[in-house]
Amino acid sequence: MAAEIYEKTNLYKLRHSAAHVLAMAAIEFDPKVKLAIGPPIESGFYYDFEFTKPLGPDDLKTLEKTMRSIINKNIVVEHKTMSHQEAVGFYKKTHQPFKQELAENLTDKELGFYGIGEFWDLCKGPHVKSTGEIKAFKLLSIAGAYWRGDEHQPMLTRIYGTAFETVKELDAYIDMLEEAKKRDHRKLGSQLDLFTFSDLVGPGLPLWTPKGMALRESLDNFIWELRQKYGYEKVEIPHITKKALYETSGHWEKFKDELMKIATREGHEYALKPMNCPHHTQIFNRKKWSYRQLPQRYANTTMVYRDEQSGELSGLSRVLSITQDDAHVFCRADQVKEEIGNVWNIIEEFYGALGFKPTPRLSTRDPQKPEQYLGSPAIWDQAEKALADLVKKRGATATTGVGDATFYGPKIDFMAKDSLGREHQVATIQLDMNMPGRFGLTYTNEEGKEAPVVMIHVAIAGSLERCIAILIEHFAGEFPLWLAPVQAVVLPISEKFVDYAREVGAELKKNSWRVEVDESDERLGKRIRNAELQKIPFVLVVGEKEVADRTVSVRMRHTAEQPTVPLNEFVKNYRPNDRSS
Amino acid sequence: MAAEIYEKTNLYKLRHSAAHVLAMAAIEFDPKVKLAIGPPIESGFYYDFEFTKPLGPDDLKTLEKTMRSIINKNIVVEHKTMSHQEAVGFYKKTHQPFKQELAENLTDKELGFYGIGEFWDLCKGPHVKSTGEIKAFKLLSIAGAYWRGDEHQPMLTRIYGTAFETVKELDAYIDMLEEAKKRDHRKLGSQLDLFTFSDLVGPGLPLWTPKGMALRESLDNFIWELRQKYGYEKVEIPHITKKALYETSGHWEKFKDELMKIATREGHEYALKPMNCPHHTQIFNRKKWSYRQLPQRYANTTMVYRDEQSGELSGLSRVLSITQDDAHVFCRADQVKEEIGNVWNIIEEFYGALGFKPTPRLSTRDPQKPEQYLGSPAIWDQAEKALADLVKKRGATATTGVGDATFYGPKIDFMAKDSLGREHQVATIQLDMNMPGRFGLTYTNEEGKEAPVVMIHVAIAGSLERCIAILIEHFAGEFPLWLAPVQAVVLPISEKFVDYAREVGAELKKNSWRVEVDESDERLGKRIRNAELQKIPFVLVVGEKEVADRTVSVRMRHTAEQPTVPLNEFVKNYRPNDRSS
Repeated sequence: MAAEIYEKTNLYKLRHSAAHVLAMAAIEFDPKVKLAIGPPIESGFYYDFEFTKPLGPDDLKTLEKTMRSIINKNIVVEHKTMSHQEAVGFYKKTHQPFKQELAENLTDKELGFYGIGEFWDLCKGPHVKSTGEIKAFKLLSIAGAYWRGDEHQPMLTRIYGTAFETVKELDAYIDMLEEAKKRDHRKLGSQLDLFTFSDLVGPGLPLWTPKGMALRESLDNFIWELRQKYGYEKVEIPHITKKALYETSGHWEKFKDELMKIATREGHEYALKPMNCPHHTQIFNRKKWSYRQLPQRYANTTMVYRDEQSGELSGLSRVLSITQDDAHVFCRADQVKEEIGNVWNIIEEFYGALGFKPTPRLSTRDPQKPEQYLGSPAIWDQAEKALADLVKKRGATATTGVGDATFYGPKIDFMAKDSLGREHQVATIQLDMNMPGRFGLTYTNEEGKEAPVVMIHVAIAGSLERCIAILIEHFAGEFPLWLAPVQAVVLPISEKFVDYAREVGAELKKNSWRVEVDESDERLGKRIRNAELQKIPFVLVVGEKEVADRTVSVRMRHTAEQPTVPLNEFVKNYRPNDRSS
Repeated sequence: MAAEIYEKTNLYKLRHSAAHVLAMAAIEFDPKVKLAIGPPIESGFYYDFEFTKPLGPDDLKTLEKTMRSIINKNIVVEHKTMSHQEAVGFYKKTHQPFKQELAENLTDKELGFYGIGEFWDLCKGPHVKSTGEIKAFKLLSIAGAYWRGDEHQPMLTRIYGTAFETVKELDAYIDMLEEAKKRDHRKLGSQLDLFTFSDLVGPGLPLWTPKGMALRESLDNFIWELRQKYGYEKVEIPHITKKALYETSGHWEKFKDELMKIATREGHEYALKPMNCPHHTQIFNRKKWSYRQLPQRYANTTMVYRDEQSGELSGLSRVLSITQDDAHVFCRADQVKEEIGNVWNIIEEFYGALGFKPTPRLSTRDPQKPEQYLGSPAIWDQAEKALADLVKKRGATATTGVGDATFYGPKIDFMAKDSLGREHQVATIQLDMNMPGRFGLTYTNEEGKEAPVVMIHVAIAGSLERCIAILIEHFAGEFPLWLAPVQAVVLPISEKFVDYAREVGAELKKNSWRVEVDESDERLGKRIRNAELQKIPFVLVVGEKEVADRTVSVRMRHTAEQPTVPLNEFVKNYRPNDRSS
């Protein structure tokens, strides 16, 4: 849900008031606690405190109990204002230095306060009418958070909670959290042996194992297959560039903190690429183009590097080495709609095959902050209109994120809910009517004159790392057959049947299966259990009868039957690369 | 030819004496010229001078003429020695500061001189008996070179020349140079639109166009196909690492000048990887291995980065972004021979398909310089013996490069001559009994005890960039069908036949051809000529008759006939991916 809509809901008020009730409970728990901030967030609320004593996980129960009693009293939520001076004085007197700092930094003459009983909190609201409205809430976790998010400031204790309008919704959310925990891609990624991290290499730098590579390649090949239909061609570029490229593109200025920089022994300045567009412009610009030769469509799956803060790195969701399935289309203005339409088709087909229904989100510039964007307002108007028209033409309803455009142009992001109902941004199409000007990208039009090229930035998976993190959790590691790193495992009942098991393995491999033969000396039951833990779609058991009849005994994930079928029939019935299965 | 063998040949003496004669001619041309050094090199000789007047290319003719007259006088080459003091005094008196510095830096008591007439030069020899033996020589080019190769020293003028025992050999060499110039991969690479360079991105950083990518992928896929047969699996790694990885591997110390280093905003030290082995050890080390699970074979085509001096960058031969088709095998000591044998098979099959006959070159350590190598002499002896045994077992004759081993182990390099007779190092197998120790890479052996793993480094193409540079020149851009970036172009005689031309294109594409349809409005003759310049194996011309009969008129490179064949027959007869064709 877009932030501006959420803020008007009853749910938002509910969570906001719950945060205040939490602060009241914290004061009862530790009368000298210092309060910081306590806003509603997308999935609930939090409040930051500086306690005078350490807080254990059991203390959340105590706090919840106090909150419950305050809620049961159904206390009316009141509103009043204080003058700026009064407010600062109030917090000074009550020894609340963080609140005092907040009040001091506000420039309004009158500051709003919300009160529940005797507890008044500096706050813009809105809130529920009385605490009794908070019918379903829960405190979830404790984390550390710096005051004002600044590592040079004191470390506070953040308590996360959530609230819903009904107990049923709350329970569903808690169940979802439990399920999400089980599906955590970091845990499953290790269990399924998809990737690993090394302390010597560093955080945020995943190392991809053979099984993880199978997953990466299945996704990337699928995207490439879809792109090929629309005339894309592969290119390849180095991961570094001289500073000059980003001075021309504007990235040196706009991205400077996030650039990883290199000084060579001769004293040249290089940077690791944080994106691929500037490099791709240089491939396009290698020669003159006529209007007949456009569009040129360059696809390139390659890693980009951004200097992220190490505290923000997490599993595959946030990494330093991001593999983008990037593409750039260089076309005429009159080709933009068709090209974007084609990308939209690719996005629908790709995510459709994965069980997602992506919906568009149009990101436009913030007209109040023209200094944040490159290029003239006229060019921006034209580009934003082109995207809005296309959304309309596709019969789609797009939400609009005002101020969410990139600095070089508006974009359509695609949002999709996973199997747990969590929404992710999954793909993006960005229109760029600025960068071509900076690099002088032109073509010769039908009148023989130079005309500016339009550039479209297209990522389908976006980041392979993030996409795989989402997919692991979406499927709980139980990938569809075409995506499964190991699609089948052959288990000989005993050593006597290893030869036949190998034969079955070889036959499947010949038919493009990713197959393993488990010849370890574990008991059969243990090996079946291992295959289940590995979430392998097909377990093929072979013993005396199967050898004699040239069959396999087939166990499929979550299927009780274990039919025995002739090997050649099995090969004929299941296609390991069929994405509709 | 190995250096120590070359130095004993007559050819070496001939070229050495020719260098002295060149110095004599230089003195006659410019009596105040300062002499530096003038050694024989692999393909001829050079001499470095500091002239008092600028030298034009025409002056090479004058110098050659003077050389010819000295040679015709058949002057005897004499030898004498001077004491160290005498030699320094001699050069001081004759105002030869570079020679004086050379003499001063020598520690021998007696220094050898060779004389031709009145010209005596500080020199270890050997030389021919008299100048008349120099029957075939030529001066080739002029270049700049720093005294002692140090950019802080004076820039000298280097004159390159060559000499052979017979005029016939000299002429053949000159012809080869002419042909090599025509085949220069930088020129052909641009003509065939395979790659480009951008001043903004920087030298040594090739940008690969769609056609270049087709070439890269054809080669890389071929290597992968061969590797798959022997149980290799793909992995993927980031291009950077924390310093800690290279401190453990020893690269931080050994490679420090060549490492491209990054300091993050949080102050962490990272480096771009100059090789992949340390990263791959971390993938191997993600879990415990039993003896039954080895070998683990990790393949990874990925770019590595080295801080080369910009003066040394040249086309694709020497780049900053090197794409390695790298692989590492982690195995038991008793598996080494079989694994290396398998790699040898891959190398023979890969280069065989490209028309090369690679021969092995065993590189061992320099026993005089143990400080240059990691690991104990006993381990080195064992590793060097294993490789020597294998060479013997394969029935191959290997030359031995003493002192050419890497710092972590001995290796077998494979050398091959291209179609112009130039020898290249094309593949390498490196044994590594040291790095596993540094990273603690072990497996559990049959007795349940931890045993050290042996690591084998394997590159087939080595660097895709260098390999492609060699192949472009080897084939003069006329790649075999399976490797050609564009395998066929369809030319409609006029606009009327464009539909059928597209149909032919689509049919070929469906059959895995890389095909273009040239619909430009150029005349047919011009379009045929363009296809020839692009060195496209098949040109398919279609007009009225072809449309009516559903045929194509086939023009093959360098073939006079132009048979007209039914489209379906053409598709049946030629397989675009058949590497034996």
